[in-house]
Amino acid sequence: MIAEIIATGEEIRTGALADTNSAYIAAQLEENGIQVVRLHGLGDDLGRLVEVFREVGERADVCVVTGGLGPTVDDLSAEAAAAAAGLRLILEPRALAALEEFFRRRSRPLNPSNRKQAYLPAGAEMLPNPVGTAPGFALTIGRCRFFFLPGVPHEMRRMLSAEVLPRIAAAAGGRRDYRLVRTLSCFGMTESRVGDRLEGISAAVPGVRLGLRAHFPVIQVKLYAAGRPEDKVRGILDQAAAWARQALGSVVFSENEATLAEVVGRRLSETGQSLALAESCTGGLLGHLLTEIPGSSAWFRGGIVAYANEAKTALLGISPQTIERFGAVHEETACGMAEGARRVFAATWGLSTTGIAGPSGGSAEKPVGTVCIGLCGPGVGPQAYRFRLDYDRRSRNKTVFAFKALDLLRRVLSGMPLEEG
Amino acid sequence: MIAEIIATGEEIRTGALADTNSAYIAAQLEENGIQVVRLHGLGDDLGRLVEVFREVGERADVCVVTGGLGPTVDDLSAEAAAAAAGLRLILEPRALAALEEFFRRRSRPLNPSNRKQAYLPAGAEMLPNPVGTAPGFALTIGRCRFFFLPGVPHEMRRMLSAEVLPRIAAAAGGRRDYRLVRTLSCFGMTESRVGDRLEGISAAVPGVRLGLRAHFPVIQVKLYAAGRPEDKVRGILDQAAAWARQALGSVVFSENEATLAEVVGRRLSETGQSLALAESCTGGLLGHLLTEIPGSSAWFRGGIVAYANEAKTALLGISPQTIERFGAVHEETACGMAEGARRVFAATWGLSTTGIAGPSGGSAEKPVGTVCIGLCGPGVGPQAYRFRLDYDRRSRNKTVFAFKALDLLRRVLSGMPLEEG
Repeated sequence: MIAEIIATGEEIRTGALADTNSAYIAAQLEENGIQVVRLHGLGDDLGRLVEVFREVGERADVCVVTGGLGPTVDDLSAEAAAAAAGLRLILEPRALAALEEFFRRRSRPLNPSNRKQAYLPAGAEMLPNPVGTAPGFALTIGRCRFFFLPGVPHEMRRMLSAEVLPRIAAAAGGRRDYRLVRTLSCFGMTESRVGDRLEGISAAVPGVRLGLRAHFPVIQVKLYAAGRPEDKVRGILDQAAAWARQALGSVVFSENEATLAEVVGRRLSETGQSLALAESCTGGLLGHLLTEIPGSSAWFRGGIVAYANEAKTALLGISPQTIERFGAVHEETACGMAEGARRVFAATWGLSTTGIAGPSGGSAEKPVGTVCIGLCGPGVGPQAYRFRLDYDRRSRNKTVFAFKALDLLRRVLSGMPLEEG
Repeated sequence: MIAEIIATGEEIRTGALADTNSAYIAAQLEENGIQVVRLHGLGDDLGRLVEVFREVGERADVCVVTGGLGPTVDDLSAEAAAAAAGLRLILEPRALAALEEFFRRRSRPLNPSNRKQAYLPAGAEMLPNPVGTAPGFALTIGRCRFFFLPGVPHEMRRMLSAEVLPRIAAAAGGRRDYRLVRTLSCFGMTESRVGDRLEGISAAVPGVRLGLRAHFPVIQVKLYAAGRPEDKVRGILDQAAAWARQALGSVVFSENEATLAEVVGRRLSETGQSLALAESCTGGLLGHLLTEIPGSSAWFRGGIVAYANEAKTALLGISPQTIERFGAVHEETACGMAEGARRVFAATWGLSTTGIAGPSGGSAEKPVGTVCIGLCGPGVGPQAYRFRLDYDRRSRNKTVFAFKALDLLRRVLSGMPLEEG
């Protein structure tokens, strides 16, 4: 069974609103074994709506349409559906009763323009909307069953799961495929290198399809498989995930969409250890990433954002001579910062960043993108590492500096090599 | 001139990613006087890509395609474009040179799979990508000029404005209407209240169209006007912006898309003042927001992320009795934190946050969403304010706490009332 999805409305056509409804519907259909092949975005243009409904009616088995069911003159979905199917609009008594009930409960009069919402194409099946005024409906156009839903996300979601998915599942019957996905998150390798490493995966594990997705600075490896029964599909993904882990090594930091900060936090929490930070170039971003995790106060002690050099000496106890001799961006300074953070907060681990995020502040010797990361813990260091990671924009450089620091700590905590070749 | 937009990629088709690129492109095209009529979302399926490229090629004047230019086997845009236009793929020397330069600058070898990105349809016009490996290209298919851009949003945006919009404007020539937009950014009022306040604007200023856009926790008021000559359109927007400012008052913090942190930073920088932070519940986010701004080291001294209570006493000099008597989340503690930060970093202003971001840690007296913000500066305080701002999710609460703190400082620095009714 193949499906298409149509989002309607001037706000979609003109880009005033990004269409998140279609992504939601696509994900739900895919999870339910219906293959989505095309998404469409259209304005409130009757002729174009009719044209696209007819076009999709010749091609797809199922189509979900959002928007255009409201009370105003630019809500055209019912009219366009009727025209595409060669039907008239008629007053649907059940729809009218539901509307009257909706307004009665809210002690508001039924507006004449709301009455328009009770007109549906003749023979359409009404889909009740328990949380809004716009009833939906199902209608066959060409060879395809169309489901018309309101564009308001929470109304759409509720009606999709209560009314649409059960009807589609019933129609699909035994033809239902399981479509599963596994996600491996990687840091420290470019998308193209990840792709190269995984090139043979579809040959090695028949039935798996590979997708790569960049969420800067993380590369997500998506492994897709479809078929029946569910166990078999799951087995293919297990095998593919093992193959990918083998090919990618320690750049894979999670297999359950956990963030890098969550992976580090869980490791600290499981071993009863704690962490303190001394941030310069990352400006608080490391602390922010770690404190996004509920319960992080159990293992995160705190940090010092030592933006000015005086803060590095006064708060972290780095000697002014060190900064004078080596500069603020140097392994020696990074070591002193990590050691200072660990001591000041009485934490198991101290982690530091000092670098040049840009756009200014770089030099020939220390160009923009230079970062020194310091680490200090039980039997470890203080030690520091210098990297050059320039991603053209200050905010991206800050992000990659923070991830690099978290990744170093993850590797040390897990006894992994510090970099993957 | 009419345009269509195509987003490609399995993540789009399957709903793993909501397509925000197309909305961005649609808005840009509309602002530039090009009418967008259809948006399309497609997976990495060669046959279907070719079919849709041909279909659009018969219908539209302009089409912008995103995605599918990467180095991996599932990146099919160039191949599909060549097939739809009946052309071969050839190695484009300028694209290869740009790729080599990109890797040389980063001291990385040019990967064989990246080499694939230099193959473009014969006769295509290469569109340089200064910030990524994927060059774009322009190609005529049927009667329509297609522009192929990478799917990575910041690469796409940069190339859209540098390469695509100027070419479209040149092709549109004198048929162009000026479609201008003015953006007022607001913090501290719900979207529906902003909408209510602005209800009469189209009647008061004929020719202006209003759009509201929520970028949590900021509400952007978009004022659109179109026509000729440019001066007239600009005059309408000036008048509408003045009307909106009057209606909204001090919740408007910028009219040039500057962030709240930028507004605060500019104010500090212009007056030669400096800022230090003591963050508890925001965990470093305030420092992160401030250090996103290039040159922030001129006025941002640093901060202490005092997650543990011991850090509040040892580093910020708050007496343990204060914390014991009032608790960590209290105006007294917030005052002590702001004062401590100001003293420790020798800054003009000290700003602090202490609160409960959730999901746990709340109580009947101090539920999740409670935050105390402390402020201390020349002739001001230390003083603190308590708010209850619960947005259901930890990360949203942290964000709104940080924005509330910045907004308080903005209001104090500008002599504004502390809250807008």
